[in-house]
Amino acid sequence: MLMLTNFSVRRPQFELPQQRALRWLSELHSTAEATLMGWSEPERAAFAARFDKLVERCACGPDRIGKRGHVTADLGSSDRLDLYDVRRFPRGQGSAARSSVFTEVVNAYFEQEFATVDRAPSELIHVTCTGYVSPSGAQRMVANKGWGASTHVTHAYHMGCYAALPAILIAAGHLGVPASLRPENTEQRVDIVHTELCTLHLDPSDHSAEQCVVQSLFADGFVRYSLTQPGATAAEPGLEVLAVSEQILPNSAASMAWAVGDFGMHMSLLRDVPDRIASALRPFVSALFAKAGLNVAEELRHAVVAVHPGGPKIIDRVREVLELTPAQVQASRDVLFEYGNMSSATLPHVWQRLLLDDAIRPGALVLSLAFGPGLTVCGGLFRKH
Amino acid sequence: MLMLTNFSVRRPQFELPQQRALRWLSELHSTAEATLMGWSEPERAAFAARFDKLVERCACGPDRIGKRGHVTADLGSSDRLDLYDVRRFPRGQGSAARSSVFTEVVNAYFEQEFATVDRAPSELIHVTCTGYVSPSGAQRMVANKGWGASTHVTHAYHMGCYAALPAILIAAGHLGVPASLRPENTEQRVDIVHTELCTLHLDPSDHSAEQCVVQSLFADGFVRYSLTQPGATAAEPGLEVLAVSEQILPNSAASMAWAVGDFGMHMSLLRDVPDRIASALRPFVSALFAKAGLNVAEELRHAVVAVHPGGPKIIDRVREVLELTPAQVQASRDVLFEYGNMSSATLPHVWQRLLLDDAIRPGALVLSLAFGPGLTVCGGLFRKH
Repeated sequence: MLMLTNFSVRRPQFELPQQRALRWLSELHSTAEATLMGWSEPERAAFAARFDKLVERCACGPDRIGKRGHVTADLGSSDRLDLYDVRRFPRGQGSAARSSVFTEVVNAYFEQEFATVDRAPSELIHVTCTGYVSPSGAQRMVANKGWGASTHVTHAYHMGCYAALPAILIAAGHLGVPASLRPENTEQRVDIVHTELCTLHLDPSDHSAEQCVVQSLFADGFVRYSLTQPGATAAEPGLEVLAVSEQILPNSAASMAWAVGDFGMHMSLLRDVPDRIASALRPFVSALFAKAGLNVAEELRHAVVAVHPGGPKIIDRVREVLELTPAQVQASRDVLFEYGNMSSATLPHVWQRLLLDDAIRPGALVLSLAFGPGLTVCGGLFRKH
Repeated sequence: MLMLTNFSVRRPQFELPQQRALRWLSELHSTAEATLMGWSEPERAAFAARFDKLVERCACGPDRIGKRGHVTADLGSSDRLDLYDVRRFPRGQGSAARSSVFTEVVNAYFEQEFATVDRAPSELIHVTCTGYVSPSGAQRMVANKGWGASTHVTHAYHMGCYAALPAILIAAGHLGVPASLRPENTEQRVDIVHTELCTLHLDPSDHSAEQCVVQSLFADGFVRYSLTQPGATAAEPGLEVLAVSEQILPNSAASMAWAVGDFGMHMSLLRDVPDRIASALRPFVSALFAKAGLNVAEELRHAVVAVHPGGPKIIDRVREVLELTPAQVQASRDVLFEYGNMSSATLPHVWQRLLLDDAIRPGALVLSLAFGPGLTVCGGLFRKH
């Protein structure tokens, strides 16, 4: 039996109510453009008014996202500015500066998060698509704890929002290999840690509708959990992993992209993403249930569905296509509302919530779905214990 | 039994003799500095003469590296310039331009490399630390071949020169997981593909001794191979995987680093790397042999040793510490001489060479060692079949 357990969420230092975040975006973009164009204040204000309209039309509103966490003080502020001092850096600071912030924040996170962890995992999988620095915070912490010979560190980087599921596959693989491929460590536990600092990658000079959507959705998030292999009679709470599937959809490479650029990473996102995913979903989910020996027609209606809340629309489309009730996807909506889209860290936040929710009884089936560049669709089927 | 097999090396489009590469570096750095400083030609020439001395003192000479492969025409040329048109871009072009070159080259490589591959692997592991783009060339190829539901794609990114060994661990894990965690594909084969385009990350404005070393060592390389699980009587040639170890050394985080910057990725490399690695090597190798049930004192002297040729010095130090004969590490020296340091693609080039070398008989033991940021030391013990 493979069990997801030990969930630990750590909130970023700062939090920004969405209403204020959207006003800040208008101020940020208009000031960036004014700097680039050498505009007067009335010219800037006129641009801000136009950008407000774009925000109203395209951005994710405060009815869907209440607030978002972030790691730098300059989000939402026009006083304390660093990465987004757009009067000096109208595109924000360059990738090196963003990389430095990532390094500092993630190194500190790992030290804090593992300060009270006494037993070395035999594998530590660091998942992120928002910062690439080696030695990573994961590697530094392992060395500092004296776990260098007891713990393998694997970087599962740059897979996007769905990366929790490939990470679980790597973890499950690790638990199954012969002893000659593992460190000398009797602990049969893989720790999976997500550090997603999406707000380090805004470009205040890109005023497209696409970026308006992106910049209104993404947030920062940290989460750690473990994959263990307890005996069949184990009593600890967790999600038993029944099946995992991954599929790349044909002819969809242009729909979503994420790449290193000059001013942080750059996302492209076409409007067809929810429809493309929706059209593949029914056979994908049926096959996932079949892999677990379950019949989708009988079981899906009783399942809780943890959808990666990329945005409000994708939850709506998944609900529609799979004919789910609002209650079945409520946890995903709640996580989006409370935290925003924290890329790959989001789905584990939903999983933790389902585990803590007493209204969801042990034995409940959990269908998890996540999406990312490829387009890649990932699914997991879990049972609550 | 786990077997590394199906090795396929594809050479980059261009190749630069080391003698010419070193002259080109002097021209590149002096022109970059002249642009930044607004120098006259005699001032540039005087700087070039000084840089020549640095090259002579620090760079890897043509006695150790004969030539290096590269993917852009501008290396070694002052006519056709793109990324390194230092009269316009004294630090080279920014990270976005380098990322674009990576995308184009790697997409084309995957299409070519898999053009004649008929059967989808159940897992494809893309290994690189020199370009992060999603959808990756691996994902695009899988979608284009119609393998989207048959093949999982995993990105094993940003682990540095040692990444072949973690990739083998992920691959071995995949072959061992239950069917409910695998795609519906009867092929029990993981393909591992390395695309390392190190030459996209030069900074012509950084004239330090450290960068002189780096820029004289690294090269581009592509290699593909498979991990399979044949029956014990399998006749195909390959390297049986007996044991793999990974260790992060204490207090060594500052010795080597690799991070995203404004002008490509940036490497830091202290002089203490060979000594730090050397000091940890004997117990590490003994433990690796023990994991395979072998006695290092009896077996090492007969083994072939495939050392990641980070540079000439690390091969020398490994040979010294492990008391090896020159012949035992010759294949590593040959790969360094013929191709340069192709980061994580280098060790698989050595493995292919050992497989093709009839003087190394079936049954021979192969010790593999690789190093990277952490400092991380990775080891593999293989048996030639």
